[in-house]
Amino acid sequence: MKSFVDLRKKQELPSPRELESLTNICFENKEVLNPKKDAEEVKKLFPHTCGMPLLKAVEKKAKSHKALKVGVVFSGGQASGGHNVIVGLHTGLHQLHSQSQLIGFLDGPSGITKGKYKELKVDELDGYKNTGGFNLLGSGRDKIETQEQLSSALQVVKDLSLDGLVIIGGDDSNTNAAVLAEYFLSHGCETKVVGVPKTIDGDLKNEWVEISFGFDTACRTYSEMIGNIQRDALSAKKYTHFIKLMGRSASHIALECSLLTHPNFVMISEEIEKNKTSLQQIVSELTEMIIKRSKNEKNYSVILIPEGVIEFIPEMKELINALNKLLVDKKILSKESLEQSLNKESYKTFQTLPESIQEQLLLDRDPHGNVQVSHIQTEKLFIEMVRKQLEIKKFEGAFSPVAHFFGYEGRSGFPSNFDAMYCLALGKTAAALISNGASGYMAAIKNLSQDVSSWEIFGVPITSLMNMETRKGKSKPVIKKALVDLGGKAFQFFASQRVSWQVEDNYLLPGPMQFFGPPLTDQQRSPSLLLEK
Amino acid sequence: MKSFVDLRKKQELPSPRELESLTNICFENKEVLNPKKDAEEVKKLFPHTCGMPLLKAVEKKAKSHKALKVGVVFSGGQASGGHNVIVGLHTGLHQLHSQSQLIGFLDGPSGITKGKYKELKVDELDGYKNTGGFNLLGSGRDKIETQEQLSSALQVVKDLSLDGLVIIGGDDSNTNAAVLAEYFLSHGCETKVVGVPKTIDGDLKNEWVEISFGFDTACRTYSEMIGNIQRDALSAKKYTHFIKLMGRSASHIALECSLLTHPNFVMISEEIEKNKTSLQQIVSELTEMIIKRSKNEKNYSVILIPEGVIEFIPEMKELINALNKLLVDKKILSKESLEQSLNKESYKTFQTLPESIQEQLLLDRDPHGNVQVSHIQTEKLFIEMVRKQLEIKKFEGAFSPVAHFFGYEGRSGFPSNFDAMYCLALGKTAAALISNGASGYMAAIKNLSQDVSSWEIFGVPITSLMNMETRKGKSKPVIKKALVDLGGKAFQFFASQRVSWQVEDNYLLPGPMQFFGPPLTDQQRSPSLLLEK
Repeated sequence: MKSFVDLRKKQELPSPRELESLTNICFENKEVLNPKKDAEEVKKLFPHTCGMPLLKAVEKKAKSHKALKVGVVFSGGQASGGHNVIVGLHTGLHQLHSQSQLIGFLDGPSGITKGKYKELKVDELDGYKNTGGFNLLGSGRDKIETQEQLSSALQVVKDLSLDGLVIIGGDDSNTNAAVLAEYFLSHGCETKVVGVPKTIDGDLKNEWVEISFGFDTACRTYSEMIGNIQRDALSAKKYTHFIKLMGRSASHIALECSLLTHPNFVMISEEIEKNKTSLQQIVSELTEMIIKRSKNEKNYSVILIPEGVIEFIPEMKELINALNKLLVDKKILSKESLEQSLNKESYKTFQTLPESIQEQLLLDRDPHGNVQVSHIQTEKLFIEMVRKQLEIKKFEGAFSPVAHFFGYEGRSGFPSNFDAMYCLALGKTAAALISNGASGYMAAIKNLSQDVSSWEIFGVPITSLMNMETRKGKSKPVIKKALVDLGGKAFQFFASQRVSWQVEDNYLLPGPMQFFGPPLTDQQRSPSLLLEK
Repeated sequence: MKSFVDLRKKQELPSPRELESLTNICFENKEVLNPKKDAEEVKKLFPHTCGMPLLKAVEKKAKSHKALKVGVVFSGGQASGGHNVIVGLHTGLHQLHSQSQLIGFLDGPSGITKGKYKELKVDELDGYKNTGGFNLLGSGRDKIETQEQLSSALQVVKDLSLDGLVIIGGDDSNTNAAVLAEYFLSHGCETKVVGVPKTIDGDLKNEWVEISFGFDTACRTYSEMIGNIQRDALSAKKYTHFIKLMGRSASHIALECSLLTHPNFVMISEEIEKNKTSLQQIVSELTEMIIKRSKNEKNYSVILIPEGVIEFIPEMKELINALNKLLVDKKILSKESLEQSLNKESYKTFQTLPESIQEQLLLDRDPHGNVQVSHIQTEKLFIEMVRKQLEIKKFEGAFSPVAHFFGYEGRSGFPSNFDAMYCLALGKTAAALISNGASGYMAAIKNLSQDVSSWEIFGVPITSLMNMETRKGKSKPVIKKALVDLGGKAFQFFASQRVSWQVEDNYLLPGPMQFFGPPLTDQQRSPSLLLEK
């Protein structure tokens, strides 16, 4: 009998047919992909890597390849499956040539500029297969942007004679991969740069990236807990659970978790912004639901709140902007001074907020001196405002709110079987792209809702995913963050169901992820991936 | 292909040999078990049910049994496996006679006094096997204590002509089962009362109850998340996670989770009380560990805090008692008045506390007007005090604390295979005890660390587990709550390891519970159960 970890580490998972052996595939050039927006500007900034063709993997007769030396780095927050990208990359490189070498840069992109790395050998990698976290190498949030950083990176990859560099990261890190690819090419450096789409937030998503890795595992981890809490709510019949979910600006995680669990109420930030729903309207909707359920003897409910919702509520956004402007001049704002300094609307908004949230807005600063939006305890904001509203409505039922925040526990769990397979395939794809001389490309796999054997393997020019956006006052080329598509099938399905979820208890209880037993219908693929296929 | 829930509900799990068919067993009288403490007083209160023999199940030739009509009720907080107790009870009753009936009382003990119930049939029960929660019947925290409640209960069981009544609950609910058994016997009522030991807190534990059901699942659920957070800490290398764990007064859950995950620091309330460790000492220990780890470039750690720790810290206990005394006279306490009203020591303690905790102590009241100890955000108390201490020590490393509370998500998850099997067996044992005419007994299974086939089945007189304690000023017969045994093998093992856990990262990452695949060494049995066997 083996332990869980030992069995999981040794578990063999199926691979897409085309990736079974990298010696048997090559990439065909397909149509040229240009940015859909701001193509001219992007082209100017990326003369070597803009306007490249889509690459599609196809089978060919086996041929011999040369040994490759490739570097790899984790960039940004953890996402489950990262270790499998590296295992897949290593496997792929060694399929191409047994003398290939894999270099892991330590602690994120700064490992590249500072030349901090270690060679990764199969013995060490064996201990990381199918495990979560990025602890094999560590990670970091630094970027390689300044001329100094770019030239240090160039020197390091030259000194190491790297044939390729794989950057595992989110939208900004993949933008960074494109910048590096362009920089290397324009300096006559042979190192190919390839990006791999990672983020639990799900906001790196487009025609070519059906889903970013880590999203599935994070949502299943949160949903296991949401399901447990729903079962508890059904049994205890007396708590109203306000569950805030990690996920930055976009509400992908909240939407996916709601498809996995069918809670009573879910806020979708993108919808709130589109409909210009006010804070008071959300609170009223919640309050009405609580009253209605209480009349049906249901003094319990489960409510999901996306982490970034506050910035999508119009008057909160205005208030935060106004406070940030005031903070440019003053370091400390007093409550008393606000009546004069804020406009009427924003002052009114401020006054409706619970005291603890007011204090947070006035005192908590990020390193740039701005309001620390991510620290605002939205779950408590809603609890306090709903409580007040229930009092106004002379609610006679019971209201026992419980606040939860699910975050870090979802970033580094053992990857779901989907993420584990997807990441092995992404790593192999990155190896194949480098071997084929592609630079400035992202490893992309399509047809993910289907059986692994029929997944389709692509290389996508990263520049084709870019547009120009203003960041910190400057126009910059970036990969557009994907918010929840309110016209998309996943949201539409949710929208068609949610009214009944408010009244009835249609809770789904997904249970813990199962890795070893028979395949389970509901644990194969992300529900939004299936709906949107 | 089936969904997770469908497969789990249909899963067949092994049964102890003696419980395979209840027609083939009977109970042998073993030694008489008297209370180990206060035997005379308990005997006076329980003339019919004190001094009864231990019952041990033994095989016998199959004989025919009469049909039984039995009631069952959930009492108190949820614990995973409760539904399986009822499934086991139903199976057992129907093995004895195909015409047996099972009545489920609704919403806890008040369902008995108010006569709210439904008949439970196999079709409905099929949907609840191997699921968490108590939602089949609901639960409640009422007791059957007053003369009025006792006589209502008597009337209801008489009207229903119940042969037996099974109370699934913790220490107080089992005490209640004994009270009912005695009351029914003294009133010539034939209904046998049997208790089943439930609680995630693990504090219902003694010579006959090796573990209460629900404890294993709760600890594995929390430990999955703790492991995920540990992996995240190892990768991000910048957060100090303060994780508060549900579990009331005792630290069983914190101890068990630490055996499952090997975190850097764990508070054990019972040890703090024994050593009279002050709040400042705990904070200093934590601070020293953080400084030491930071010197080794480890600006991260994972710290477990049992829910009830605050009441075990001597000066906090004194402060809370002093505040409660002051609150008898006054409804509102002002900070200003405290210097005069508290003694010097308690006032000093109060002053060392962060402002938010001071406010909580002064403002938050339970229904009896006492300080709401369970609401004190201990995890934030420690964060603030450690932060202050680090400033005093001129700490130059990074300290980014993150607070977590794991509670409700552990009470109602799908039961672990252990809890699922244990509960089926407990339900069958209860049926067998009633069929054998036992009343005032608790269903008890021993040898649980061994293979299911060799589990040993007992009935234990509940009165033998009692002693007299002062509750709300009155001397009452109760089952003694089991705190962590500091001389026990589980704690001793933990104590022998924890110093290395502080410095090195010996994190265990248990992963999600696996139900269907091959058996896993680390998911068979509770580690403290194995250590203490």
